[in-house]
Amino acid sequence: MELKIKEYLFNIIEKLDINDELLQGNFGIEKENTRVNKNGELALTKHPKIFGDKLKNPYITVDFSESQIEMITPIFDIVENAHKFMHNLHEIVSLELKDEYLWPQSLPGILPSEKEIPIAEFDDSKEGKYAYEYRKYLAEKYGKKLQLLSGIHFNFSFKDEFLLKLFNEINKENTISYKDFKNEVYLKITRNYLKYRWILIYLIGASSPIHNSYREECIVHMNKLTDDSFFYENALSFRNSKCGYKNKERLDVDYTSIDAFIKSIKTLISQGKLRDIKEYYSPIRLKTKNPKNPLEQLSENGIEYLEIRMLDLNPFNKIGLELKDLEFIHLFLIFCLFEDEKEIDMKKFEQYDTNHDAVAINGNMENIKFVRDDGSEISIKEKGYFVINSIKDILNRLNINNENIEKVLNYQKEKIDNKEKTYISKLIKEVKENGFINFHLEKAKEYLEEIKKESFNLKGYEDLELSTQIVLKEAIKRGIKFEILDREENFILLDNGIKKEYIKQATKTSLDSYSTVLIMENKLVTKKVLEKNNIKVPFGEHYIDINKAKKDYYKYRDMKIVVKPKSTNFGLGISIFTEKPNQNDYEKAIEIAFKEDNSILIEEYIEGKEYRFVVMGDRVVAILHRVPANVKGDGIKTIKELVEEKNKDFLRGEGYKKPLEKIKLGEVEQMFLKNQNKSIDYIPQKNEIVYLRENSNISTGGDSIDYTDIIPEIYKEIAIQSAKAVDAKICGVDMMIKDINNINPEGNYAIIELNFNPAIHIHCYPYQGKDRKLGKEVLDLLGF
Amino acid sequence: MELKIKEYLFNIIEKLDINDELLQGNFGIEKENTRVNKNGELALTKHPKIFGDKLKNPYITVDFSESQIEMITPIFDIVENAHKFMHNLHEIVSLELKDEYLWPQSLPGILPSEKEIPIAEFDDSKEGKYAYEYRKYLAEKYGKKLQLLSGIHFNFSFKDEFLLKLFNEINKENTISYKDFKNEVYLKITRNYLKYRWILIYLIGASSPIHNSYREECIVHMNKLTDDSFFYENALSFRNSKCGYKNKERLDVDYTSIDAFIKSIKTLISQGKLRDIKEYYSPIRLKTKNPKNPLEQLSENGIEYLEIRMLDLNPFNKIGLELKDLEFIHLFLIFCLFEDEKEIDMKKFEQYDTNHDAVAINGNMENIKFVRDDGSEISIKEKGYFVINSIKDILNRLNINNENIEKVLNYQKEKIDNKEKTYISKLIKEVKENGFINFHLEKAKEYLEEIKKESFNLKGYEDLELSTQIVLKEAIKRGIKFEILDREENFILLDNGIKKEYIKQATKTSLDSYSTVLIMENKLVTKKVLEKNNIKVPFGEHYIDINKAKKDYYKYRDMKIVVKPKSTNFGLGISIFTEKPNQNDYEKAIEIAFKEDNSILIEEYIEGKEYRFVVMGDRVVAILHRVPANVKGDGIKTIKELVEEKNKDFLRGEGYKKPLEKIKLGEVEQMFLKNQNKSIDYIPQKNEIVYLRENSNISTGGDSIDYTDIIPEIYKEIAIQSAKAVDAKICGVDMMIKDINNINPEGNYAIIELNFNPAIHIHCYPYQGKDRKLGKEVLDLLGF
Repeated sequence: MELKIKEYLFNIIEKLDINDELLQGNFGIEKENTRVNKNGELALTKHPKIFGDKLKNPYITVDFSESQIEMITPIFDIVENAHKFMHNLHEIVSLELKDEYLWPQSLPGILPSEKEIPIAEFDDSKEGKYAYEYRKYLAEKYGKKLQLLSGIHFNFSFKDEFLLKLFNEINKENTISYKDFKNEVYLKITRNYLKYRWILIYLIGASSPIHNSYREECIVHMNKLTDDSFFYENALSFRNSKCGYKNKERLDVDYTSIDAFIKSIKTLISQGKLRDIKEYYSPIRLKTKNPKNPLEQLSENGIEYLEIRMLDLNPFNKIGLELKDLEFIHLFLIFCLFEDEKEIDMKKFEQYDTNHDAVAINGNMENIKFVRDDGSEISIKEKGYFVINSIKDILNRLNINNENIEKVLNYQKEKIDNKEKTYISKLIKEVKENGFINFHLEKAKEYLEEIKKESFNLKGYEDLELSTQIVLKEAIKRGIKFEILDREENFILLDNGIKKEYIKQATKTSLDSYSTVLIMENKLVTKKVLEKNNIKVPFGEHYIDINKAKKDYYKYRDMKIVVKPKSTNFGLGISIFTEKPNQNDYEKAIEIAFKEDNSILIEEYIEGKEYRFVVMGDRVVAILHRVPANVKGDGIKTIKELVEEKNKDFLRGEGYKKPLEKIKLGEVEQMFLKNQNKSIDYIPQKNEIVYLRENSNISTGGDSIDYTDIIPEIYKEIAIQSAKAVDAKICGVDMMIKDINNINPEGNYAIIELNFNPAIHIHCYPYQGKDRKLGKEVLDLLGF
Repeated sequence: MELKIKEYLFNIIEKLDINDELLQGNFGIEKENTRVNKNGELALTKHPKIFGDKLKNPYITVDFSESQIEMITPIFDIVENAHKFMHNLHEIVSLELKDEYLWPQSLPGILPSEKEIPIAEFDDSKEGKYAYEYRKYLAEKYGKKLQLLSGIHFNFSFKDEFLLKLFNEINKENTISYKDFKNEVYLKITRNYLKYRWILIYLIGASSPIHNSYREECIVHMNKLTDDSFFYENALSFRNSKCGYKNKERLDVDYTSIDAFIKSIKTLISQGKLRDIKEYYSPIRLKTKNPKNPLEQLSENGIEYLEIRMLDLNPFNKIGLELKDLEFIHLFLIFCLFEDEKEIDMKKFEQYDTNHDAVAINGNMENIKFVRDDGSEISIKEKGYFVINSIKDILNRLNINNENIEKVLNYQKEKIDNKEKTYISKLIKEVKENGFINFHLEKAKEYLEEIKKESFNLKGYEDLELSTQIVLKEAIKRGIKFEILDREENFILLDNGIKKEYIKQATKTSLDSYSTVLIMENKLVTKKVLEKNNIKVPFGEHYIDINKAKKDYYKYRDMKIVVKPKSTNFGLGISIFTEKPNQNDYEKAIEIAFKEDNSILIEEYIEGKEYRFVVMGDRVVAILHRVPANVKGDGIKTIKELVEEKNKDFLRGEGYKKPLEKIKLGEVEQMFLKNQNKSIDYIPQKNEIVYLRENSNISTGGDSIDYTDIIPEIYKEIAIQSAKAVDAKICGVDMMIKDINNINPEGNYAIIELNFNPAIHIHCYPYQGKDRKLGKEVLDLLGF
C-alpha cells in the first residue's frame, strides 16, 4: 500500500473522479457546557427533567457533573449541518434553563468546594450505577474541578462509498482487507494529526485565564489577571495544557498499527495507569460505532471514525463553536491524509506531545519555535503557513474551487498573521476590562436574549414547515430520534426506541383514523355528522341549478343568509342578508352570485368572529382569532410604507417558514383597497386600521391573536364535542361566536369547519398572546 | 276545513305552486315470500343465519312462519327507488338460499300438515317470546296455512314539507291543529280507498288457483283446475277473498274521525273479536312511525302514514311486484285525496266490503256490476275507467305531464279493456298448461338464473362505485342500516345500532390510521419503511438532474435496470436493461428518458408478473393478476370486431360501475398497436393474443385473473408483512413475482407499491376465477 505517498493518492482520486467525494464525510459534534446561576456560580440544581433519561436521550445529557450538560449531534453529511444542529441543541437547552445560563467558556465560572460539586446522578439500572461509579473514580483520581473543564469533540469519518472506491482501486491484487485499509487510512491521519495538532491549539485555543475558585495547585503558579482571575501570559489553552484535562503522566501509545495500538493500551491498563481506554485523554481517539468493549471492537471492526478532542469553547461565539473552525479541522484532517509519511517512528511522538504542551501554555507569542524532525528549528508562523498552503495545494491539485473554503483558510491565516486575532488575545483583553465572571456572564445573558428572538427555527430544517420544525424541536428536547422521510412533504419518523410514529405536517398522525380525516375533508359530510350530534352548523346548501336555488326560497325565508359564488376573488357576487330576505331580493342575490361562478352557496348567515380552537385529545389546547392583513395608520406613512414596516417584524416571513407571513400588496390586496376607494399610497389617519384582505388567513398576512384564556369554557366544550363527533384526536375547530362574553351558546355560535391538519406554529408564535407549546401537546398526545 | 272538496284543493295547490310536491312522498314496501325446496314443497329449514337476528335486521326477517321470509325496504322519496330496493332484497335473499327458492306466488306451494308448518322462532328475549307467542295465538285461531298466505304491503305518506305548506294555507285562521289536519288528509284518503279499493284487486289480484295441499275447508268448495290445483272460475284474489287472509267476520270500524276509529277498535278488542289492532286485517291501515302501543300513538301523534295491504305477489314479475302497479297505487291514493266526499256515512262501508269480496272472488268477468251509493248499478269497466280518467283529470288540471304516468295509466287501462290481460287470466292459462307447482317452480328457477347474472349491481345505487355497492349489499344482508353521506364521493355510514362506521370507497375506513395511509400514499416513504422491514423493493431513485443521474452510474452498474420518464404515454423513452448496463448505454438511456419528461426514474428491473394481493387484517383475502387489455384472434375477425365482441360481456361496463371495463380503442391503444405494426383492422390469427395497452389496469380494459389459491403461502406471508410494516389493516400489495412455483422468495419477488384503497369489485367478479366475497371480508374486519 502506497497510502503514505501524497502523489499516489492524488493519482487514484483523479483517476476515479471522486474529487468531490473526498470532501464528503460523516460529521458529528459533542459539546459540554457547565450551567451557572445568575451570579456565575456553578448551578447546583438538577439536570432539567424535560430532557428525560440521561442514559437514553441521545442529544442532551450530562457529562461528569450534574451541572455539566453535554449536547451531542447526530451524524451529518456536511460539517455545516452538524454545526447547525449543535446550534439547535444549544438553543433548546438554553431556553429550558430557569434563571440559569450555559457558561460560554471551557474553564468554569465560580466553583464551590470540591465536595460540593455534584457528580452526575443516574438511575438504579446497571448502566446507571456504572456511570456514577466511574465518575466517582475520576473525581477521586483527578478531582472534580478538573473534570468540569468543558470542551468540544468533533467526530469524523469518510463516506464508506468513497473509501470503498479507493480500496477497490488500490486493492486490485486482493492483497489487503478493507478493514486493514481503513485502519491504515485513519492511522495515517491520526499520526499526522498528532504531529501537526499544535496548530489547532493555536487557532482555536480559548481557555485562559481561569477563575480564582479553580484548583489552587494550578493557579498558584499563575499570574493574576483581574481580581477574580489568574493566567499565563502567553497561554492559549489551559484545558489542553499539562494542568488541564490530561492524564497524570505522558502515556506511551503506539500508533504504527492497530494491533500495536491495542497492545500499548492494554499494557497501560495492566500497569494500572488507565482503568480502561476511555481514561486515555488523547487529543484524538480511534473510535468504533459500537461503544461497548472498544478494544475488542477496534480489533474486530477496525477504526470506524476519529474523534478530535482538543476544541475549547469559544466565548465569542453564541454556541461556543465557530463553524469556520470546524470546517478548518475537516480540511486539516484531509491534509493529514495526504501529507507524506516517510517513515513511522513512534519515538518522535514524544516531541509532538511536547510541542502540544508548549503551544498550549506558551503559544500566543510572535516567535515561538519548534524543533523539526531533523533537529532544525522552525517558527510557529512558518509552520502554520505550511499547513495552510499544503491544504491549498491539495485542493488546487484536485481542482476543488470553493469560495467558502477560501474564506475558511483566510480566516485562520489571519490568526497566524497577527496574534492579536487569536481568540485568546481577544479574551484576555475582554477579561482584563470587564472581569472574568462579569465578561462571561454578560456574554451568556446576551446570547440568551438573541436565542429567544431567533429560536422559532430549527436550523438546518428551515425548508420544513414551521409546525414540523416545532415538533422536531420538541422531539429533540425529549431525546426522541427522528428521521426526515420526505422533506418536501414534511413527513417525519419519530422513534424513541419503544415506539415509532410517522407524522406528516406536524398534526397528521396515527392518532386519527382515516375515516375521521375523510369526514373532516368533506364539508358536506362534516356538517351532517355535526348536525346528528346536535352541534350547530350553518344551515345551507350548494347549488349548481339556478332554478333549484330560487325554488328553495322557502328553506331560507326565515333566517339571515349569505348568498355567494363558490369561489370569488374580490368578494364579488356575495350578498349578505342581515334581515330575513324577501323573495325578490333572494332571487336577485342568486342571479348575482351565478354571474361569478356556476356553483353557489346559500348559507345561514352567522354573526360574530371566527375562532380557531385546537382540540388535542379531550382538551382545547389553543384558541386563536385571526384578523385579516391590516395596517394601523400613524397619520404620516402610506399604506405601502406601513406594510413595509409591519413586515420587518422578525416573526414575519414567506412560505410558512416563519410564524407569520409577510403582507403582500398584490392584485388581491390592491383590488380590496380599490373597493374601499383607497390605494397603496393612501395615508391612513392615526390609529385608523385599514384592512388589506377579506380573508383572515395567516398565510395571506393575517394577524393571530391568542384567546385561549379568554373564551368561556362552554365553547371549549362545544369544540371538544365537535372533535369527538368525528372521533378526531387532533382537530382544528373553526367556530363563529357572536359574543364571547355570552356563556349561553344557544344562537351565539356555529361551527364553520373542522380541520384535520391544524397548523400549530400560529399558536406558538402569535402576533398577540403567548406560546401555547403545541409541539409539546402533540408529543404528549402521541404518548412520547 | 274544505278538504273534502276537490276544487278547493286544486286552488290551494295551484296557488302555492306545489304541484310537483304533490307527487313526492315517502314510500316503503314490505313483501313476504315462502321458501320452497326444489320440489316446490314448503322448505322446513331454518331462516338463513347470515341474515342475523330476526328481530333486529330491518330489511330481511321472517313473517309468521320460519319458512316465510319478509323483506322490508327503507323509506324512499320516489316509488321507483323503493321498488329497486325491494329488487335488491329479493336478489340478496335469493342468492343466499341453498337449493331453495322464493315461491313467486301469494298462495303457497306444497304444504305439509298444519302441525308440521314451522312457526317462526325467536330468541329468548322478552320481545322474542312475545313474537313467538303471538304467532302461536294466530296459528290456533286462524290456522297456520292461512297465515302462510304471502303478500305485499305498500307504505305511503306525503312529505311533511308538502303537508305543512297545505296546512299553513288552509289554517290561516288558526282553527285546527296540524295533527288534526293530517288525520283528516289521511282519513279522507282511507275512506275513498275503502270505497274504490276493489279496482286494485281487479288490476293486481293474482292469487288463484290454489294448491291441493291448502286448507281442505277452502278447496272443498272450489273447482279442480289441474291435477294439483283448485280454483274459482272468475276469482282474482283468493288471498283478498273471504276465505283468504281476513278476520273471522266483518268488523265494524269507524273511519269518520281518528277518535271514532280508536273507539271502534277498542270496542272490538273489548268484545274479544281482536286481541289488538294488529289483528285487524284491514285492506288499509292507519299507521304511526313508532310501532309500540299503536292506539296511543295514533291518538297522540295522529296518522303518520298509510299501509296498503291488498297486493298479491305477481308471479309474472321476477320479484313478484310490478313497478307500474305500485306507481298506479300511488296515483290512486292521490285520486283518493282529491275525490269529493259529499258526506260520510259509515253504513255505506259495508257495501264497499261486499264489493271487495265480490271482486276478489268473482271479478274476472266481463260484466260484473256494482251498486252505486244511490242504489243504481254500474259495471266494473265503467267504474274502472272513471277512476283512471279522474286521475288523468287531476294531473291535467295541475299541469303535471309525465310520460311515465301515461304509461302507467295505459298499462292499467289495458287490463280493464280486456280481461284476458289481467294477471289472473294469464296465470290460469299457465297453470292449466303446466300445472300449479310446475309453473311456479319453473318461474322461481328461471328468476334465480336471471338474478345470478345481474346481481353485481345494487339497484338504485348504480351511480356508486361497484366496490361500494358490494359493501352496501353485504350490509343490507346483515341488517346494517346505512346512509349515503356523499354519493359522488362514495361516502357511506353503516350503523347497526351498536357501532357506526364511516366508509369511503369501500376500503377507506377507520381501521387504518391516517399516518398509515400517508405512508402508502408516498411511494418514497413506503419504500423506506419496507426496506427497514427487510422487504424487497426495487432499488432506485427519481432524478430531475441529468448529471446527477449519470454520476450515479456506480449505484446501478451491478443490476438489471429500467430507465424511464416519470410519465410516458406510449412507452416512449423507456429503456430496459436485462443485463448489467455499461456506462455508455446507461448514459444514453438517461438522455432518452429526459427527452420525454424532466423527471425520470432509474429503478432496478424486476422480472416477473405483477400480482395484487389484498390483505385484510392478518390474512390475504384475494390475489389477482391483471393482464393488459387484449383480444384473442379467431383468424376471421379484425381487432376492432374482437374488441366489440369482448365488450359485449355483461361484466364489462364503463366508469367503474361494472366489474370489468370495456376495452377502448382510443389514441393510446391505437398508438400501442402501431408500435406493433398493427392497426385496429388487423385480423389476428387463431389464438393469437394481441395486447392493446402496456398497463394492465382493469380500468383500461385489462382482464382480471384470480390467483388466490395458486400463489404459495410464503408470498402471502410477505404481503401480510408488508401491510404490517405500515400498520395497514386493509392494503393492496402489488408484488412482482418471477416464478410463482418457486417457494424461495429470495430474488424472486419485489413489492412495487402498497395501495390504501384497493378496489374490491375486481376480486368479486374476476374475468377468470371465483368471487372472493370481499364485501363480507370488509364487514367482518370492521367487526359487524
